[in-house]
Amino acid sequence: MTKKSVTKRRLGLWAVGVHGGLATTMIVGAKLIAKGITSESGLITATPAFAGISMMPLDDIVFGGHDVRKSTVFESAYEIYRDNGTIPLEPLLELKEELEEVDANVRTGSVLNCGKTIQNLADPKVRRARSSCKDTYDQIRADIANFKKRHNLDQVVVINLASTEPPLATTKDHQTPTGIERLIREDQKDQVRASTLYCMAALKDGHPFINFTPSNAAVLPGHIKLAQKKNVPIMGNDGKTGETLVKSALAPMFKYRNLPVLTWQGYNILGDRDGQVLADDTNKASKISSKDSVLSSILGYPLHTHVSIDYAPSLSDLKTAWDFIHFKGFLDYKMSLQFTWQGCDAILAAPVALDLVRLADYADRLGEGGVMSHLACFFKNPLGTDEQDLHFQFHNLMDYLEQKRQQRKRSRTKSPKKMTRKKKR
Amino acid sequence: MTKKSVTKRRLGLWAVGVHGGLATTMIVGAKLIAKGITSESGLITATPAFAGISMMPLDDIVFGGHDVRKSTVFESAYEIYRDNGTIPLEPLLELKEELEEVDANVRTGSVLNCGKTIQNLADPKVRRARSSCKDTYDQIRADIANFKKRHNLDQVVVINLASTEPPLATTKDHQTPTGIERLIREDQKDQVRASTLYCMAALKDGHPFINFTPSNAAVLPGHIKLAQKKNVPIMGNDGKTGETLVKSALAPMFKYRNLPVLTWQGYNILGDRDGQVLADDTNKASKISSKDSVLSSILGYPLHTHVSIDYAPSLSDLKTAWDFIHFKGFLDYKMSLQFTWQGCDAILAAPVALDLVRLADYADRLGEGGVMSHLACFFKNPLGTDEQDLHFQFHNLMDYLEQKRQQRKRSRTKSPKKMTRKKKR
Amino acid sequence: MTKKSVTKRRLGLWAVGVHGGLATTMIVGAKLIAKGITSESGLITATPAFAGISMMPLDDIVFGGHDVRKSTVFESAYEIYRDNGTIPLEPLLELKEELEEVDANVRTGSVLNCGKTIQNLADPKVRRARSSCKDTYDQIRADIANFKKRHNLDQVVVINLASTEPPLATTKDHQTPTGIERLIREDQKDQVRASTLYCMAALKDGHPFINFTPSNAAVLPGHIKLAQKKNVPIMGNDGKTGETLVKSALAPMFKYRNLPVLTWQGYNILGDRDGQVLADDTNKASKISSKDSVLSSILGYPLHTHVSIDYAPSLSDLKTAWDFIHFKGFLDYKMSLQFTWQGCDAILAAPVALDLVRLADYADRLGEGGVMSHLACFFKNPLGTDEQDLHFQFHNLMDYLEQKRQQRKRSRTKSPKKMTRKKKR
Amino acid sequence: MTKKSVTKRRLGLWAVGVHGGLATTMIVGAKLIAKGITSESGLITATPAFAGISMMPLDDIVFGGHDVRKSTVFESAYEIYRDNGTIPLEPLLELKEELEEVDANVRTGSVLNCGKTIQNLADPKVRRARSSCKDTYDQIRADIANFKKRHNLDQVVVINLASTEPPLATTKDHQTPTGIERLIREDQKDQVRASTLYCMAALKDGHPFINFTPSNAAVLPGHIKLAQKKNVPIMGNDGKTGETLVKSALAPMFKYRNLPVLTWQGYNILGDRDGQVLADDTNKASKISSKDSVLSSILGYPLHTHVSIDYAPSLSDLKTAWDFIHFKGFLDYKMSLQFTWQGCDAILAAPVALDLVRLADYADRLGEGGVMSHLACFFKNPLGTDEQDLHFQFHNLMDYLEQKRQQRKRSRTKSPKKMTRKKKR
Repeated sequence: MTKKSVTKRRLGLWAVGVHGGLATTMIVGAKLIAKGITSESGLITATPAFAGISMMPLDDIVFGGHDVRKSTVFESAYEIYRDNGTIPLEPLLELKEELEEVDANVRTGSVLNCGKTIQNLADPKVRRARSSCKDTYDQIRADIANFKKRHNLDQVVVINLASTEPPLATTKDHQTPTGIERLIREDQKDQVRASTLYCMAALKDGHPFINFTPSNAAVLPGHIKLAQKKNVPIMGNDGKTGETLVKSALAPMFKYRNLPVLTWQGYNILGDRDGQVLADDTNKASKISSKDSVLSSILGYPLHTHVSIDYAPSLSDLKTAWDFIHFKGFLDYKMSLQFTWQGCDAILAAPVALDLVRLADYADRLGEGGVMSHLACFFKNPLGTDEQDLHFQFHNLMDYLEQKRQQRKRSRTKSPKKMTRKKKR
Repeated sequence: MTKKSVTKRRLGLWAVGVHGGLATTMIVGAKLIAKGITSESGLITATPAFAGISMMPLDDIVFGGHDVRKSTVFESAYEIYRDNGTIPLEPLLELKEELEEVDANVRTGSVLNCGKTIQNLADPKVRRARSSCKDTYDQIRADIANFKKRHNLDQVVVINLASTEPPLATTKDHQTPTGIERLIREDQKDQVRASTLYCMAALKDGHPFINFTPSNAAVLPGHIKLAQKKNVPIMGNDGKTGETLVKSALAPMFKYRNLPVLTWQGYNILGDRDGQVLADDTNKASKISSKDSVLSSILGYPLHTHVSIDYAPSLSDLKTAWDFIHFKGFLDYKMSLQFTWQGCDAILAAPVALDLVRLADYADRLGEGGVMSHLACFFKNPLGTDEQDLHFQFHNLMDYLEQKRQQRKRSRTKSPKKMTRKKKR
Repeated sequence: MTKKSVTKRRLGLWAVGVHGGLATTMIVGAKLIAKGITSESGLITATPAFAGISMMPLDDIVFGGHDVRKSTVFESAYEIYRDNGTIPLEPLLELKEELEEVDANVRTGSVLNCGKTIQNLADPKVRRARSSCKDTYDQIRADIANFKKRHNLDQVVVINLASTEPPLATTKDHQTPTGIERLIREDQKDQVRASTLYCMAALKDGHPFINFTPSNAAVLPGHIKLAQKKNVPIMGNDGKTGETLVKSALAPMFKYRNLPVLTWQGYNILGDRDGQVLADDTNKASKISSKDSVLSSILGYPLHTHVSIDYAPSLSDLKTAWDFIHFKGFLDYKMSLQFTWQGCDAILAAPVALDLVRLADYADRLGEGGVMSHLACFFKNPLGTDEQDLHFQFHNLMDYLEQKRQQRKRSRTKSPKKMTRKKKR
Repeated sequence: MTKKSVTKRRLGLWAVGVHGGLATTMIVGAKLIAKGITSESGLITATPAFAGISMMPLDDIVFGGHDVRKSTVFESAYEIYRDNGTIPLEPLLELKEELEEVDANVRTGSVLNCGKTIQNLADPKVRRARSSCKDTYDQIRADIANFKKRHNLDQVVVINLASTEPPLATTKDHQTPTGIERLIREDQKDQVRASTLYCMAALKDGHPFINFTPSNAAVLPGHIKLAQKKNVPIMGNDGKTGETLVKSALAPMFKYRNLPVLTWQGYNILGDRDGQVLADDTNKASKISSKDSVLSSILGYPLHTHVSIDYAPSLSDLKTAWDFIHFKGFLDYKMSLQFTWQGCDAILAAPVALDLVRLADYADRLGEGGVMSHLACFFKNPLGTDEQDLHFQFHNLMDYLEQKRQQRKRSRTKSPKKMTRKKKR
């Protein structure tokens, strides 16, 4: 063991969907920030709000992951440069070697029961794979364990950045860890999706797990119970990065002024693989339900809402959303607000993914486990809370940080170590 | 004294600019709500958030005020129906008699040093009036005192709903009550504007004063000192009802995600007298400065902003604002959000004016005086605080209400009376 | 016969859907214009472009029609005033008597095979009616004939302003007049819709027919052949009044600059009965197909388009449409244009309906029959032409008018009569 | 004379402002199209509409020009790639050598009387230059003559792509060629601007001249008379490429439906040098007046309009414009249309500049001279016509082409040569 590894914590980030636009943008961005080539814009963990909170430095994070498409991180990044222009070419070219090191950590993923559209995106070999649930599950665990060992990592955080699966109808078996394990063992392929295995594999071996997608199969009640039992941090669902972010920031305003919202229509258009997968109604169902619940929860009354997501190939990842809000005021007079959001999904989501990995690692180091409801501000459908108001959510996170600062002050004489493992499992 | 006046508090609302669109809408709306013809939409004081806080019932408020134009409340309301359609005709026709009672409480106001555009809107007789500052000031005091006496009112809240005056360059004399009084006495017409007199008159006789306009002459440092000394509630400036409301609700979102805002352009178009007055650059200066300070205060860094207000007669009071927000995210990639706000200014402002009068009356009853910074959420440029974040502002108000509820609980055994005068001056 | 009827032509306008928002707005508007209370805005036939072309004066038009809901024109107009504010109340009240005269010309219509959503809107008695196709058809003819006779009219133009029916799958029988007549006679209720009967009834008795809706059952190939044979003017389909109007005005611009349009997404939201009927996917199908064909026809290449219509009850008839246009330019760089259209459908459509009736009457007087393709500019899916470019369409109409002016000049010595019947059938 | 020069025409394009974003984009684009790397999008001269009209192939055009800033075309292009992403990096890198050949044709320009803002952008040496008008004029002529000679060119078209100068108050001297020449000779520096010299120099030596800017000093009445006298093609002013293009496409729609436009507000925001220059009110004046005249000309009545251009540095060349159109319809009901245009100015303008140069060269080859009013569709403020309707303008161009095709057919037996000089001066 080298001296460095004694004093310095090493963190692994295992991305499910590592060749996707989001993971690729996240990896390239982390490396460019570490080199000082690009700013830390987008990372809330890099702001003064986190003063005194020891976040993992980006250059101490080792990247790896699963994917179902044959590619390299560089190829995927180059495609993003070409189609969206969001990744700058010149710095990318200089990163080629480092990205090849990431490629060495990429393993073949699973499309088990993910629906036709996702399966069609996968490599033919992956698509045709007929291994049992149990074999796939064991393989995933082995892949992560090897990654950890090979790089001498203190911990690995697993984050699900894969395409949205269709919703899974949950049964009694999904309510407990043993139930899920039985389904896996008995190879009940229609009751388990790929994401079910990823989450199970992560938790089973004590790795924090973050479900950045709306796929409900990734964070079943049984998963959550396992996370609590093993004291492993877990959080989801569905990163809040665009139209829904704006919604949850704006909706409280109507409440503050007692301006009843009559209608809130939201239309999203986007291209690329994300748009393609969401053009499939079965996959879209997961997303829509996640986006639609926000408003009545914040406003406190039912209202006419509509959310649609349409595929417009020419937009690539540059998602455009138009929202029309019809509300009434004094004398029951009707007025309107409309907004157009034009943002690149991967650019908005990538720093949030890094923030979440850092915060999961932080919680893990402090010995915290189970649902991290203090991270609700990052999710469309946060676990462990009904709070959908972005402002409350954010200030909950700020309160959590302040509490940690206070705890640290109080315990400073006793526990001087930071950035080292606190947990034994 | 009748029995009714013992058990029931009677409140006067004295509106400066009582024939304007805002005051007219406020009066008509209060009366229609009191009759149950229209809902309480727009009034935050009518929501469950105010449970346990005794707000003045709308039908116990007697309306009166000053204006510089010859009109009647009914005529003004009819004009609004015709030009904007915001006041419904049929209920209005049934209100005619009640509105004539308000007319009996209307007195001729002053355009002293208000700038040409406002003076041109005034009745020729008002425009040509050449009374001294002192005479005008005395007349205003007498008008309000007579109103109070005639209607046997417990208190009168004065609210400035007049057109925006040009900014007043303040001098040493404006810093103290005696300084202002000296300027009035010495008839220094270029150092005093009409609104200076209204505010002075209100405070001098113990009436709470609210400056709903951006006119700085209405709430000079000397005014504030007088309010503190006499323990009279005072608050301003410039009701936050449209584009700036949206701004102060949205801007925090960019901070929560560390998305640096590069440019925030705001374009407002509106018609009617408000638009006409603001088309005058000298008057507009007050407004723009009030609208523009919000963003860098919330975001914590300087940014490129622009606010314009243009006169488009065909819009009447249906103000339309377009805001374009350019921000950068991860990898320094630039994205944008734009919104279009289409609201009727008077419809948005009228309930806020009523909310403020009720809350000023409430504070007054509890013996509170000086700047009411807990009402910051209602103002573009709130006195007594630097907080511009709408969410913080709103929760400050909620905290204030909660504190009052707690105080009331604690004191219930001692002071069972509510809705009666608490103060002696 | 009075002297007046000799010298002055009297025209009947028979509206199918006479209690609907469009017909009501049309009738009220025609009467207010005739009285000089409102301007002729919206009527192209009232502009200098029609100088020298003798359009029927609005006060010489007698209104009548069919409807399936029990109401009166006044009630329907009052509802519009209340929900949309588009019809002004005071003039409406003065019109009450005249509108009652129209009510005397209203007869019960049919919902034959119109789909559930339309049937549910109908009066229970109408819904339950079980008369044969033939009986209904005969009744319609009798209703119009009686109207004509009762008012001593020179001609009656029939215009279909009813709700959009689901598309009718056409068969061989629909290709000829005799085929359609056989279907009616044999009571083949699933091959005939209400609109099929209305059109047949009109043409059979020599009345010009205009299909302002997208319902294809109203203008079947067999109908067109009958119109040609009997030399009766006919035109359709689907009035072009909102989003599609803008589309057909804007799309040529992209062609003029060789800016290939990649994606054109159109989202329409509206309330009221129209929105309710279009919320039914079977009825919407007629509309969408009519709206979607415009672009590739103008641009000359296939492109990614999307049109949706969603029901948002709070909007009533104030339709809002958002279109997003993604196009590429020099260096294949992608840019965008978006527009938001906020218009009241009935307000936009009503003057077009009047224009069409006047122009159909004009053609009829000149002895013209068959498809009036010179009226293409008024339709989303014009008969008799593939031209979708609004500018070409409009200039075709201008050319038609110019041609008529020339013909009139040449024939002035021979045929001095205007505004009198030219045709014998 | 080489064999090549006999059979193949060689055309020079002399750009005033050759290092600007527009000229750079034009040159890079022309070269990438010539190599088949990018499509001909944006070039109307490359569409089937020009079948049978012999446009100059892009790879037979030799580029040169004047500029007042020290730079290279490559540097300028690289800056555009970096700030706007509109020029793709990889192809640009391969073009480096070719662009250096263009640099060899670049000469130092003049900022004579161009206003402070433009002068501040210039190289200090240029800014401090104190040569007389006459010397500058002679130098410009020599620069173009040497360019022509060095490259053995058949003709040189001069196009003004420089920054917008402040408007020049014209006097009697500006009305004639001799008047302008006298002003130059007498060194009347305040009555002549740099663009006055460029145009004079071009025409004097028989080179077609195109004023792509709104600078009126570039196409004075005296210039036009000279062009007529010498039979040299001339055209301007101000390329119509963005918001005004949309305006002139949309406005006719309101006329076709008799929907009176009440208000048309246009707000433009943009960054980069163009935005910086237009932030100077004196320079902006030229632009605004050019943009504002379009509407009432098309609609045929005066209306409330407003156009503003604001500098928002973060946008670089990605101009964003918001237009709000308020119009009334039937029953005088008011409705609205708003659009947001997001386009890159240089990307939109560059192909138009190439189209104009090709069409000027074509006219010149055919022996046409004077104002080319058939090119009105490309200008905000076209010379030689009052027609502002984009559709009429475009079809005028189409008619011109058709006429040329007919002439060619008729003359084919006599004059088989194409692409060779037709004129002697």
